[in-house]
Amino acid sequence: MCKYQPVDLIRKYFGEQIGFYFAWLGVYTQLLIPPSVLGIFVFLYGIFTVDDNVPSQETCDNGLNITMCPLCDAVCDYWHLSSVCSQARASYLFDNGATVLFAIFMSLWAALFLEHWKRRQMYLKHSWDLTSMEDEEVFMIKVYKMTKNTKSEKNIEEDDNKNTKWICMLSVWSMNPDPEAKASVRMTVTTTGIILNMLVVLVLEEVYGAIAVWLTEIELPKTTEEFEERLIFKSFFLKSMNAFAPLFYVAFFKGRFAGRPGDYVYIFGDYRMEECAPPGCLIELCIQLSMIMLGKQLIQNNVFEVLIPYVRRNKRAAEDAENDGEEQRPRQQFDKDFTLEPYEGVSPEYMEMIIQYGFVTLFVASFPLAPAFALLNNVIEIRLDAAKFVTEVRRPDAVRCKDIGIWFNILCGISKFSVITNAFVISFTSEFVPRMMFKFMYSVNGTMSGYTQHSLSYFSVNNFPNGTAPSSSLSTGVTMCRYKDYRDPPWEKDAYTFSKEYWSILAAKLAFVIFFQNLAMFLSMLVAWMVPDVPRSLREQLKKENMMLMEFLVNHDEEVLSKARSPKQSMIFGPRTILHSAPKASWMSMTSVSTMHT
Amino acid sequence: MCKYQPVDLIRKYFGEQIGFYFAWLGVYTQLLIPPSVLGIFVFLYGIFTVDDNVPSQETCDNGLNITMCPLCDAVCDYWHLSSVCSQARASYLFDNGATVLFAIFMSLWAALFLEHWKRRQMYLKHSWDLTSMEDEEVFMIKVYKMTKNTKSEKNIEEDDNKNTKWICMLSVWSMNPDPEAKASVRMTVTTTGIILNMLVVLVLEEVYGAIAVWLTEIELPKTTEEFEERLIFKSFFLKSMNAFAPLFYVAFFKGRFAGRPGDYVYIFGDYRMEECAPPGCLIELCIQLSMIMLGKQLIQNNVFEVLIPYVRRNKRAAEDAENDGEEQRPRQQFDKDFTLEPYEGVSPEYMEMIIQYGFVTLFVASFPLAPAFALLNNVIEIRLDAAKFVTEVRRPDAVRCKDIGIWFNILCGISKFSVITNAFVISFTSEFVPRMMFKFMYSVNGTMSGYTQHSLSYFSVNNFPNGTAPSSSLSTGVTMCRYKDYRDPPWEKDAYTFSKEYWSILAAKLAFVIFFQNLAMFLSMLVAWMVPDVPRSLREQLKKENMMLMEFLVNHDEEVLSKARSPKQSMIFGPRTILHSAPKASWMSMTSVSTMHT
Repeated sequence: MCKYQPVDLIRKYFGEQIGFYFAWLGVYTQLLIPPSVLGIFVFLYGIFTVDDNVPSQETCDNGLNITMCPLCDAVCDYWHLSSVCSQARASYLFDNGATVLFAIFMSLWAALFLEHWKRRQMYLKHSWDLTSMEDEEVFMIKVYKMTKNTKSEKNIEEDDNKNTKWICMLSVWSMNPDPEAKASVRMTVTTTGIILNMLVVLVLEEVYGAIAVWLTEIELPKTTEEFEERLIFKSFFLKSMNAFAPLFYVAFFKGRFAGRPGDYVYIFGDYRMEECAPPGCLIELCIQLSMIMLGKQLIQNNVFEVLIPYVRRNKRAAEDAENDGEEQRPRQQFDKDFTLEPYEGVSPEYMEMIIQYGFVTLFVASFPLAPAFALLNNVIEIRLDAAKFVTEVRRPDAVRCKDIGIWFNILCGISKFSVITNAFVISFTSEFVPRMMFKFMYSVNGTMSGYTQHSLSYFSVNNFPNGTAPSSSLSTGVTMCRYKDYRDPPWEKDAYTFSKEYWSILAAKLAFVIFFQNLAMFLSMLVAWMVPDVPRSLREQLKKENMMLMEFLVNHDEEVLSKARSPKQSMIFGPRTILHSAPKASWMSMTSVSTMHT
Repeated sequence: MCKYQPVDLIRKYFGEQIGFYFAWLGVYTQLLIPPSVLGIFVFLYGIFTVDDNVPSQETCDNGLNITMCPLCDAVCDYWHLSSVCSQARASYLFDNGATVLFAIFMSLWAALFLEHWKRRQMYLKHSWDLTSMEDEEVFMIKVYKMTKNTKSEKNIEEDDNKNTKWICMLSVWSMNPDPEAKASVRMTVTTTGIILNMLVVLVLEEVYGAIAVWLTEIELPKTTEEFEERLIFKSFFLKSMNAFAPLFYVAFFKGRFAGRPGDYVYIFGDYRMEECAPPGCLIELCIQLSMIMLGKQLIQNNVFEVLIPYVRRNKRAAEDAENDGEEQRPRQQFDKDFTLEPYEGVSPEYMEMIIQYGFVTLFVASFPLAPAFALLNNVIEIRLDAAKFVTEVRRPDAVRCKDIGIWFNILCGISKFSVITNAFVISFTSEFVPRMMFKFMYSVNGTMSGYTQHSLSYFSVNNFPNGTAPSSSLSTGVTMCRYKDYRDPPWEKDAYTFSKEYWSILAAKLAFVIFFQNLAMFLSMLVAWMVPDVPRSLREQLKKENMMLMEFLVNHDEEVLSKARSPKQSMIFGPRTILHSAPKASWMSMTSVSTMHT
């Protein structure tokens, strides 16, 4: 755990492709340390200042006695805001001023990471003699079996439909308007929700993998490299949709289109759309993100990747041992190696890591602990991957390549996209902007006191449509209930329309998005511009080598001529001298050509 | 005018640097043709649909009889909206739906232009043998005369201050609250305004040039190339500030902070801030832009660049002719050439063109004819520049370079920045968003009728502070006047505060900025990603040449050996054979080294 990776040895044993993977993983893990530390500090800042936070204090204050509108039709009762006290306090841990700065820091970090990797890659390229490696074009010789693939695709789609139907049925059951069914099912659904989500994500991942292969095959790419790149691009796109969709839903859609008391939006006839609890969707996003980071990354990947193959191998070994007894022949090493799992390429490993990079950067504004979780996972992951490649799978064929290819473009894309998502998360998921607006525009004395009252609108219980008011209520004498929105109160002319505050806060949110996006983009560009792609020491080294090569080439002919006096030697040393004694330079790729000729 | 430029000949005579300049100018001019044509179409669309445009019809409709609030305190009278009818109609020519599409098109065009130039540059680099040209490091040997420069800098600053004072005085005179002085001076100021602006811009341009040199010198850059790059960067920054500042002022600041009737913002005691006329600042931006494009570009540059040197040269030639008479010696060609102006490098030419590129891209949303004006200018400019280099200045020293250097980065920067400025021009300078909001949110019947009434707020003349109401008015019985803003009317509770419409339209404007910026950036990235940097034919050519080089190198030694039988020949043909018969390849730069050695 304390030693650097032997990247050069990895490259010598496994080839450049796997060498680059481990080098990249090493750089990524190393650079995760600063944001992890800073993220933990941001979280600690939240913990230490939560008691000074006025909005969450106000939420917890029983004295204010705020009666909230019921969360569902008829069966649900009015409730007191103070009942979500703990959620409000937890929400503050992730939703405070420091998070905004941390999000800007992470945009810079992403730019810095990409620049740092570019330099490292350049360095490796030089020290591994790949500077002018030609792209080898291995033409696809596979005969595309269009018919067969289309057929399996159909099966997959049917599978997909079945899954969707099954999930729909369950959801519908949970949204059943019949009160008894609802009450009994609510608990069950909540507990099975996460498992279901996990299952669907896993099934769809396989399905999307197959779709990506199919789509790439009907494109008929010419070379295997092109095939690889297109396949990676497609499967990344589909798999990331799969992985990030729940997060995007919670961050930007959940509860946004649910309507207001007395005028809820109903889908499929009479199912109300779900909402987040009053402290906002941010805390739900946090929970979802931490579940995925911990669950999917730490447990699922490592268990699926290492434990299961290990168990399977042991089982097979045991079976083989029985067979051995029958065959009466001592097992050779190649027999044992053959029992290992086949090597499936380095793409699944990259995919896993880059989707993790997505979790770390895209939603870091909602969950500053994400880098720390990722770091924890990667420290284990590096070792497990190494152990897996060495002991658990058949030895991979060495593949030459001069960089990490399309993965770098995907990383750049994620980094750019993360600026936008973080801007929107801070503006629309967290309550940073409404709080600032209240403090500087609506507050009487410039403090936050009164924010909770200000952020809740009034609803007159007389305006409930028939059958949607609570059928039996423990609270008596309720004439007004409150709900989280900025709408005009019932006694105004335009009752229940969006208030002036709503529009001004919306404008402020959008202005913040523009400000944040442009600031982060500008700073990232500045970082990319200030950090040179080639490290200075390497640049000077290259220059020196080039000079040496020039001198060598000029002097070479004369040497050859002098050696020509003993013709036998010259035939041996002729072209070879260049190849072995010439310094590394931009024409190393000729090695292959010249050895062919000699 | 109808022939392509002989770029290869230019390069042979003037060297790569000037060759690249003309090649770049050619590509730029050629690519200006599509946006020019489209821009003219957009303008024509405006002309043909102006009669169907409801807002400008409403402005011109005398029947509505809208009384507007006075434009200045005390001396100005109320006025009728229909008096700005022609301005409203002109404004529509540049501010219609087609302009928005044109602005998006121009973002794409900018990306396409950069990509196209990259390809062209790559092609020229190959055909001019610059593929692996090493950066020659010419170290600065100049002894920086710090004291002298600092002194001249101070003088310059004083100049600057004097200018500013002079302008301030004039402005203050124009804003004099004394009615008589005001009335008499208004006309004078308007006519002198443009001349003054031109003068200031010209003076400041020289000043900024000197500042840029001074700043770069105190940085003590090591090589001349570094010096050049830093100087260009700084002087571009300062000069573009100078050129674009008036436009930014009109587009985003003029009239934004002027206040409202009854509560105007006063600066320096009692001078009201200036406002744009009710049809909006867009038409003023258009006028300013067309003045600059026509005035500065067509007349100033070409007159200053060509006519004045020509006149000066003729004068000098005449003087020399007199001297000739005295000296009794026939004039040689080098004497004649010496009378020409010294060559000042290619930077001023680039600067001029790239500031023009800025005008074309940054504010194209306000003035779709800008590309056509630029095209017109460039067709002349190319020929004048060529004539100037050939006949008007001493023959430049040929300078080798492998690309257009920092200018490309500046072009990229302008293109990225233009996306943001265009988004803001459409949102905040044009009336596109308020019109759309009216049509889809506030209009009763989904048409634009009623927009003019909706966009004007009410002001009760009783609320004029003392001494600011019109002292003598031709209109009688005015109780309410109107002004262009979205504020609550005097009879509401929060009289004169921003209305709900104001905030909702602001939110829509900001949302449009986000939408436009991200759409344009995404499309530009898509273009940059889809167009490969190296043309396919060139890539294949390079591959072929590389292969040939490899084969040649491998066979070469054997040839040398066979020639070694006649030692005299081999000494002559030895290293030279490589240099002369080897195909163009990545190691052509060795030419210089090897010729030194031989």
